[in-house]
Amino acid sequence: MKFICAQQELVNRTNIVSKAVPSKTTMSILQYIYIDASQGRIRFIANDMENGIETQVNGSVEEEGYAAIEASLFSSIVRTLPGSDVTVTVDDHYMVSVDCENTHFTLPGRSGDDFTFPPEVEQMSGVEIKQMTLKNFISQTAFSISTNDANKIMTGELMEIDGSTFSLVSLDGHRISLRKCELGGSYPKQKAIIPGRSMTKIRDILSDHAEKSVSIYFTDKHVCFVMEDTLFVSRLIDGEYFDVKQMMSSDYETKVLINRRQFLEGIERAMTLSQEGDKKPIILGITDGEMELKVSSTRGSMNSSVPAEKQGKDILIGFNPKFLTDALRAVEDDELDIYFVNPKAPCFIRNADSTYVYMILPINFKNID
Amino acid sequence: MKFICAQQELVNRTNIVSKAVPSKTTMSILQYIYIDASQGRIRFIANDMENGIETQVNGSVEEEGYAAIEASLFSSIVRTLPGSDVTVTVDDHYMVSVDCENTHFTLPGRSGDDFTFPPEVEQMSGVEIKQMTLKNFISQTAFSISTNDANKIMTGELMEIDGSTFSLVSLDGHRISLRKCELGGSYPKQKAIIPGRSMTKIRDILSDHAEKSVSIYFTDKHVCFVMEDTLFVSRLIDGEYFDVKQMMSSDYETKVLINRRQFLEGIERAMTLSQEGDKKPIILGITDGEMELKVSSTRGSMNSSVPAEKQGKDILIGFNPKFLTDALRAVEDDELDIYFVNPKAPCFIRNADSTYVYMILPINFKNID
Repeated sequence: MKFICAQQELVNRTNIVSKAVPSKTTMSILQYIYIDASQGRIRFIANDMENGIETQVNGSVEEEGYAAIEASLFSSIVRTLPGSDVTVTVDDHYMVSVDCENTHFTLPGRSGDDFTFPPEVEQMSGVEIKQMTLKNFISQTAFSISTNDANKIMTGELMEIDGSTFSLVSLDGHRISLRKCELGGSYPKQKAIIPGRSMTKIRDILSDHAEKSVSIYFTDKHVCFVMEDTLFVSRLIDGEYFDVKQMMSSDYETKVLINRRQFLEGIERAMTLSQEGDKKPIILGITDGEMELKVSSTRGSMNSSVPAEKQGKDILIGFNPKFLTDALRAVEDDELDIYFVNPKAPCFIRNADSTYVYMILPINFKNID
Repeated sequence: MKFICAQQELVNRTNIVSKAVPSKTTMSILQYIYIDASQGRIRFIANDMENGIETQVNGSVEEEGYAAIEASLFSSIVRTLPGSDVTVTVDDHYMVSVDCENTHFTLPGRSGDDFTFPPEVEQMSGVEIKQMTLKNFISQTAFSISTNDANKIMTGELMEIDGSTFSLVSLDGHRISLRKCELGGSYPKQKAIIPGRSMTKIRDILSDHAEKSVSIYFTDKHVCFVMEDTLFVSRLIDGEYFDVKQMMSSDYETKVLINRRQFLEGIERAMTLSQEGDKKPIILGITDGEMELKVSSTRGSMNSSVPAEKQGKDILIGFNPKFLTDALRAVEDDELDIYFVNPKAPCFIRNADSTYVYMILPINFKNID
């Protein structure tokens, strides 16, 4: 096998495919990139048994064939090469040569005959969405995916297609994050629970180019994201997701309009008083015209206030400050609405058409001055 | 005690003085900043028993007094405050109030009566040097300070003043780094071994403003750096430093002129083949017109070549690649000279007037193709 391609292209493709190379595995072949240079094209494939990635490499095949090359070593080598054409050759004994200008590397490769390929997903009736939208939605919801394996379903995100509505939901038992948008067309109903790790990997691969789209294909066991040159497969998490709609109430007793930046900075200030492992709530006191922020810990106490437009009753309610900052950072609006019912019921940060909803459960607190 | 100062000034001064706050200590008072607001000026003082820092804070004293405030908490609080005036008040019970716009913090302070002050160093006949020069010299030599406590002297740097010549030297048993410059005046002979940790702290405090100077004062036990608003004291390491001049030979059998960037990139490429803990030498083969770079490890092998102007004999010599890259990164010249004697003798990277000299011992190697 022999092919030639530009160093930067090799770096980009190796970076993409390496996201599906496991850092630890008992199957040593999975730490290799399978390189297929047959049928006149070059493809890099990796598979960690949860995710599989296949990406097309722009280059010219000089000698058809296939082989497997150790991912981490190949990746560090190509990164340090000068920015010109690179020739990769694998001989009959699977010795790999990497040549670029006057630098020559030799490393042991493998035949790749024992490589485990990602499952094939039939590309029929895919759902089309802008790559940038999906990329943003993942960033704006992934923080509330549970990292606790005790409840497997919470370690994934629910991707749901209902007619022309696309939504992404995560929850961890203390909060729910939801993002929703309208698609260009209407599709059959579809629900899938995708592992959190897969979501952050596909996010890193998605382009932030405003015009590019990705097609998503579902089977019972897998989901497949098809981009221009790259295909990403993830297995799904079995089971029925929580009925999030039922948890989303639109009743409220208090509504405040607040400046996001000011509120966020106020909470960040309060968080200087909390130490590792100490979960002191931040207490919000909402009255006419202002929201007061209070924290008291063994290190000291703080109070601060932020202008706020209130509708409805006054309220005094406590939250885990990190849950508030996570949600506030995930919203782009300069001004946002927060809805409260009572100090024991969740609050909702959401916009008028609910294209984003962040639900956060409050924390009980002893009253402080 | 009560004083007012700008938030940014408070952040800067807290950052400076915090470099002398120990992360661990059995004397809890040392984790506090001693604040002295008497005689109409504000001074922050910290001391970790190896280094002491005292810095003047620009602000107005409203009520004279002194107190001690926990450094890490105070530092995180002031960083998150809005960018306007901050009022710090300490009451008779040593409760600290920090007020800025509509944010109010309260935290417990201490009287500071048990604070251990840094030693006073008499500021007589100081050596004056540009802050930027000293800052660069430390960066360009500190990497070869030994981190092995077995030989205490090697964990420091030798600062030497000889007439109008200032020099800084470090060595770790495998290499020597030396920087030298001419001062504006002539001074009495002076030698001091300054702990490596102190050197990197003072480096971080020194300005990179081209015109600012620092005055250095020596006693038997201490060295004191006096800048515009800040004073930095370090204890010295006892003992006699190595006779570096004697190790510096100017004889050579081979001299090469090489492009620094090309040589550095070649070594970085070779280093992709070395794994944690595996000390494979890089072998330099110098012949007419080129320097060949070779590495062979269990992961694979590389050879590469860099154009080089040779004078004298051909040579084949092995080095720890990290020692070469450290030295090459510390030199600013685009082209540099390297001097060799034989494969068992050290090489010298130095310029014509020896204002920089990097000596590196070679490594034995089995010949590879």
